[in-house]
Amino acid sequence: MDKLTTDVLVIGGGPAGVITAISTKNTYPNKRVMLVRRDARVAVPCGIPYMFGTLASAEDNLMGDAPLKAKNVEIKVGIVVAVDQARKQALLESGEEIAFEKLVLATGSKPIIPKPFRTPLKGVYAVYKDFEYLVEMRKRIQEARHVVIIGGGFIGVELADEINKMGDKVVTLTEMTDHILQQSFDEEFCQRAEEVLRSDGVQLRTGVKVAGLGGKERVEYVELEGGEKLPADAVVLSIGARPTTDLAEKMGLQIAEFGGIKVDEFMRTSHPDIFAVGDCAEKRCFFSRKHIPIMLASTATAEARSAGSNIYSVKSLEMNKGTIGVYSTRVNGLSLGTAGLTESKALAEGFDIVTGISDGIDKHPGTLPNKSKVHVKLLFSRFSGTLLGGQVYGGDSVGELINTIALAIQNKMSMVDLDTIQFGTHPLLTAAPTTYPLIVCASDALQKVYVPN
Amino acid sequence: MDKLTTDVLVIGGGPAGVITAISTKNTYPNKRVMLVRRDARVAVPCGIPYMFGTLASAEDNLMGDAPLKAKNVEIKVGIVVAVDQARKQALLESGEEIAFEKLVLATGSKPIIPKPFRTPLKGVYAVYKDFEYLVEMRKRIQEARHVVIIGGGFIGVELADEINKMGDKVVTLTEMTDHILQQSFDEEFCQRAEEVLRSDGVQLRTGVKVAGLGGKERVEYVELEGGEKLPADAVVLSIGARPTTDLAEKMGLQIAEFGGIKVDEFMRTSHPDIFAVGDCAEKRCFFSRKHIPIMLASTATAEARSAGSNIYSVKSLEMNKGTIGVYSTRVNGLSLGTAGLTESKALAEGFDIVTGISDGIDKHPGTLPNKSKVHVKLLFSRFSGTLLGGQVYGGDSVGELINTIALAIQNKMSMVDLDTIQFGTHPLLTAAPTTYPLIVCASDALQKVYVPN
Repeated sequence: MDKLTTDVLVIGGGPAGVITAISTKNTYPNKRVMLVRRDARVAVPCGIPYMFGTLASAEDNLMGDAPLKAKNVEIKVGIVVAVDQARKQALLESGEEIAFEKLVLATGSKPIIPKPFRTPLKGVYAVYKDFEYLVEMRKRIQEARHVVIIGGGFIGVELADEINKMGDKVVTLTEMTDHILQQSFDEEFCQRAEEVLRSDGVQLRTGVKVAGLGGKERVEYVELEGGEKLPADAVVLSIGARPTTDLAEKMGLQIAEFGGIKVDEFMRTSHPDIFAVGDCAEKRCFFSRKHIPIMLASTATAEARSAGSNIYSVKSLEMNKGTIGVYSTRVNGLSLGTAGLTESKALAEGFDIVTGISDGIDKHPGTLPNKSKVHVKLLFSRFSGTLLGGQVYGGDSVGELINTIALAIQNKMSMVDLDTIQFGTHPLLTAAPTTYPLIVCASDALQKVYVPN
Repeated sequence: MDKLTTDVLVIGGGPAGVITAISTKNTYPNKRVMLVRRDARVAVPCGIPYMFGTLASAEDNLMGDAPLKAKNVEIKVGIVVAVDQARKQALLESGEEIAFEKLVLATGSKPIIPKPFRTPLKGVYAVYKDFEYLVEMRKRIQEARHVVIIGGGFIGVELADEINKMGDKVVTLTEMTDHILQQSFDEEFCQRAEEVLRSDGVQLRTGVKVAGLGGKERVEYVELEGGEKLPADAVVLSIGARPTTDLAEKMGLQIAEFGGIKVDEFMRTSHPDIFAVGDCAEKRCFFSRKHIPIMLASTATAEARSAGSNIYSVKSLEMNKGTIGVYSTRVNGLSLGTAGLTESKALAEGFDIVTGISDGIDKHPGTLPNKSKVHVKLLFSRFSGTLLGGQVYGGDSVGELINTIALAIQNKMSMVDLDTIQFGTHPLLTAAPTTYPLIVCASDALQKVYVPN
């Protein structure tokens, strides 16, 4: 059998693997890097929901190999079935072996499929990232009239919005907690997302558990607890994901709470030459330091940059400082963003907080065409004034506004810092300088805690 | 004559005055605040160019008084002609006197009109902020066929773009330096703005000085150096602005380089109870600490928040840390943003720099509809890695992207900090996590200076 050799072997072709490979080549240009992945064609993970409505074809959501090729990263399609840590060799399903100096596990995550949904019925899908699976799923959903999506996290919500755009369908989204997006947003934000989804005809069933699925050969209905049956030609499960750690476990690497591979601040596993990044690696909260089950491509790529930089020598500032969880989405034209702790999570974790609220417009004067209302909520420590989280809904500028908040969090800025910060404003692009939302929030929070002398 | 009394007297009704008044009430709710302004109706200053094309009527660009009224700020229309500093009284043109404890000068700026343009010819305008003047100017420009705008700074550029939208006109923009927007952007950004302006039919004449204006009663032409005459039914001067300091000078307050009122970090003038904020106050560069002639509403409101907070007692963190100069604009659909030093300014000031460049797309995958190319350039100190400036062009998300850069500058972030920062990304709202532009720039700069071991 072929015996391949590399310096750095990366297992996994998603964003975590790709960026680890590129970052390694950036920092150690003379090292050889090989990336092994399961599939010849790889879907852009965040783009998966948009394969259903917005994108013209599934192929429009392929991740190109150009960035890897530009850095001379060798790409190998195959499945690693075992790793010999002593001999530093990976064994592929094909029988090939790859010798390495450093190994990076970027094996990702896979959908959680609870027992009631493990069924031989046709027409039941989960959001796997395998491109060919998604192509098939898209075809079947196109043909369905009644589509039920189970799980109102952001993937479920985005899929509901997109499948609803595919044509003449009855799309129902079920969520067992009181609101969709409740893991990432406080109630007023969830409600706004629910309003816009409903206004476009998506049926929302929140606060209700699904008992099971039924049908003969194909799925025919989703049964709710209480007995109600929702007709369904297709069902999509978007209940969550768990780290893919089969290989890591086989290798005897330590696993942390929520199932991620245990890593240190430099993304090193319990073995000094083996790293883990992205969905398969443990995540710890930036604020509470507790383990959290957050999985985001943006988090994965930040970890991948740490891993790539530190892989041959520790760069003390290029470390993983804990996961903030920054993400944005767009639901039927409404953009939402969240970063850090929500109010409900902060209270549940015992944080002593004060909030600042801003209700404004994303252009100025407010008479300009194409303006959107922007609602912002920031959360600060009452004691230190430190920013702990932010949530936004509004127009498309929300995508970068939440990143400004994320940057403020990472710099441990306080409400006082934000109150006199310098921002740029423009009539057609932002709120007015007099009402810039982050400043309004900071000032609002300050007034709630500052007792004038 | 009436004798009025207040605790804090603010002179000026622009953003600096309004925000000082509101910020004072926020921090010292029991103090009375009075704002004196020249005009009954006040234009939103940044919105002035949009009164010409985008807004349906001039009245759509009025600043409302609701925020002042909500905070119980008393509004007084009048002109302060003298201040008795010993007796702490301001004298209005009407003869009324206002007694105060603290005084804030927010008297703004006015257009620079060089000698060749001081003419009795009709049809020649400068960009005054007086609302009634602007209403009249708009009417006359609507009637003109040939409009020449002199001065390609951002007000000139925005006016050219907007007047060009007013209908069947020949709009010419002249600029004596090599490029429009050259004070705020490096060449490649200026060129991009020039391309989009030209593509919509605006005539650009850069690198050429204007010798003078000609005509009988009304202006008929603009004469360039060299003798060429551009036909002109209306001329707009947008050559720059200077601080309005007549009153301050009469009061004997110290004036700094470039004509602004001298202030300390808490916006106090040479008199302990008198503050100055906004365009009328001196500006010092965040990086070089030199005086700079930057005038932006966003800078003004940041200063106003410092002044309001510190007016009765110094809040040591609510200080003015120097002007960064953050601004964005949109030219014929292309958005541009700049923050901090440009490469040309940094080199002229003797900074030892390295740049990072990113060329990407503001959505992902790049096959999504309505995407824009985004070009970003960041400037770092080669030695410390500290971020010194950034420039962006692209779609509308540029408005908030430049604010993320501004926040990174204010936090003195380095290329290493930015390389592993956590951002949120979403297919419809931002670049991909693998190619987020600020990270790509940081990584690019790092690779130029880091010598692998």
